[in-house]
Amino acid sequence: MLNKFRLLTPGPTPLPERVRLALARDMIHHRKKEFKAVMGRVQERLRLLFGTAGPVLPLSCSGTGAMTAAVYSLFQPGEKVLVVDAGKFGQRWAQIAAARGLEVTTLPVPWGRAVRPEAVEEALTADPGITGVLIQLSETSTGVLHPVREVARITRQRNTLLLVDGISGVGLSPCPLDAWGLDCLLTGSQKGLMLPPGLALLALSERAWKKAERVTPGCFYFNLPQERAKLEKGQTLFTSPVGLILGLDASLDMLLENGLEPIYARQWALTMLTRAGAHALGLELFAPEHFAWGITSVLLPQGVDGVEVLRLAAEKYGVCMAGGQDQLKGRIVRIGHMGWVDWADVAAALYALERSITEAGGFSGARDYLEQALAAYRSALAGKPGEPLPLIHS
Amino acid sequence: MLNKFRLLTPGPTPLPERVRLALARDMIHHRKKEFKAVMGRVQERLRLLFGTAGPVLPLSCSGTGAMTAAVYSLFQPGEKVLVVDAGKFGQRWAQIAAARGLEVTTLPVPWGRAVRPEAVEEALTADPGITGVLIQLSETSTGVLHPVREVARITRQRNTLLLVDGISGVGLSPCPLDAWGLDCLLTGSQKGLMLPPGLALLALSERAWKKAERVTPGCFYFNLPQERAKLEKGQTLFTSPVGLILGLDASLDMLLENGLEPIYARQWALTMLTRAGAHALGLELFAPEHFAWGITSVLLPQGVDGVEVLRLAAEKYGVCMAGGQDQLKGRIVRIGHMGWVDWADVAAALYALERSITEAGGFSGARDYLEQALAAYRSALAGKPGEPLPLIHS
Repeated sequence: MLNKFRLLTPGPTPLPERVRLALARDMIHHRKKEFKAVMGRVQERLRLLFGTAGPVLPLSCSGTGAMTAAVYSLFQPGEKVLVVDAGKFGQRWAQIAAARGLEVTTLPVPWGRAVRPEAVEEALTADPGITGVLIQLSETSTGVLHPVREVARITRQRNTLLLVDGISGVGLSPCPLDAWGLDCLLTGSQKGLMLPPGLALLALSERAWKKAERVTPGCFYFNLPQERAKLEKGQTLFTSPVGLILGLDASLDMLLENGLEPIYARQWALTMLTRAGAHALGLELFAPEHFAWGITSVLLPQGVDGVEVLRLAAEKYGVCMAGGQDQLKGRIVRIGHMGWVDWADVAAALYALERSITEAGGFSGARDYLEQALAAYRSALAGKPGEPLPLIHS
Repeated sequence: MLNKFRLLTPGPTPLPERVRLALARDMIHHRKKEFKAVMGRVQERLRLLFGTAGPVLPLSCSGTGAMTAAVYSLFQPGEKVLVVDAGKFGQRWAQIAAARGLEVTTLPVPWGRAVRPEAVEEALTADPGITGVLIQLSETSTGVLHPVREVARITRQRNTLLLVDGISGVGLSPCPLDAWGLDCLLTGSQKGLMLPPGLALLALSERAWKKAERVTPGCFYFNLPQERAKLEKGQTLFTSPVGLILGLDASLDMLLENGLEPIYARQWALTMLTRAGAHALGLELFAPEHFAWGITSVLLPQGVDGVEVLRLAAEKYGVCMAGGQDQLKGRIVRIGHMGWVDWADVAAALYALERSITEAGGFSGARDYLEQALAAYRSALAGKPGEPLPLIHS
């Protein structure tokens, strides 16, 4: 009874009551009129969120399923792709591409850093046979935001498709498919969309659709052209994840009530809050320059056991955050500030983090960090999303 | 306000309140302790339901996804399989196998009839190179129940895996994997399990696991050996469909409260109710001999438009049933009596069916059919599941 449970991981996220009530609705049939009406409403708003005039396909799978669908639908075995590898999910692109039988060139980027667009350009110039670039918008394992827009400026002038894993990015920071010239943008339901996991969403550019029509799909379950044809009738190819679609209808109502701008303004402000708080605590930000708007990674002080910090935060303060993966295990804490999370939740996470690090022997006597964090939040809300605050770029 | 909405399709089915409240729960994290505890509880009871000592994998996909996972994990391109084709879902097996690059021999069975085990034996004897038989337990498009147990007696003595699509069968009629000697049994969440769609479950025999370890998975998203390894840690390979797993925990509580027997007794009695009612109405049962325990198909009288019957039943009486697919469109009505459906719901469906057929010009003046149906239900509950009642085998 001391603590409420607060989920501040980079997915799944807490769910709003309105979404939870939609998820509790009794079933309707996925081939009947009422459901088709929901699909129509949902589709219209998904196009706004993805920044595309084309269809946004709902798929019954996790985000990795959508990544698989994209690679197995857009490339034939033997094609060459360039994978931006700046973390665990970059590596996942490489694994999927290899499983599809593609020739994979990796562009390694140190964890915590974003790819330089020039490096992508050099790699594409070095091998003009590369027909695809696979990248994350937000690399969830590090909290980095890749310069997808700049990379698209390069790919769209070539015969090279740009596939963007927007799993922890869509609905959190801008990434309009058409305006930026991406070829594939996908996400999962359990991040910016404030839903449980189990639904993925995927959109393609026109040239990607043309390619998809020429490629024999590598996996029966993922047939994007057939999905698109069904979507025109308000349906999915196989049985729809009806409950999650009903939930999506509710979450899009909330998210898009006042259009796209307030979503990004809020996410930017929450990011500034988190970063200012961590900075005031004397913690090093793991993604110093190019950072995602839904997750912040902090390096723990030397000698502090990150596993113990997470345990204390969860068990003593009720705040569930994520640790580092692979080589970062025990070294970083990843604070998710996405989904149904507000400033007070993030402040609670900062407090739990300070207490847990102190109790794990890291530091003590931090002062004012909550006030500084909340001041940064206010300044960010008053400013323009994406405009750095001096405070956190010292 | 005249009618409540009653969903009597062969999936999705209505959901019990307890499941709906579980689906409305806020998120927990799929890599943390609390979720692993749920996975453990769920796993234990799934093994009972599937009749296996081995693992039952939860997969984040529809039932077709699980069929894809099975075929792409258990066969290499070029292998030969025999597909029992007695309806739309038999054809789906064939499509998936062809997409995987298998050599498909089809064993065609007239729609409405079950395969004869001898026919399978003859086909396997004619081509000893066949390494897999793909079949449905319940063919949802016709309401037929295939003699899976007898087919397994044939396959388990050969180097031939038997893959059973139990999507509209598991939790509805017995199909124990180990005792019957099946090699793969899979289902979806939206049928016997009283859940929304979006979660599939899949179990393999020991020899199938050995085969899966030798086969290079054909689709990155479906890696059964890696899923099994993760399941040992109470997790799934990629992000779990957390909400549906919480719902499954609740639905298994309800389903298995008194073990397996009452589930099948209830399903058998609901089947007898439906069949006796249809028989008393003078309707021809589309699967006369070997019928599923969760769905009943009836042929409409000559000249009656099935699409109109379904429309009337839904709009005038609030009962949503399914029509025929492909060549059966407009000719049959498929009444789902699975999931959170009881005798009164099925009686309502029979009434709606009688009224709608009458109003569509089919017949009128039926008497006593509801009483006969309910009498059959009582007799069936008093007898032994699977023991035919004389009434409906006249």
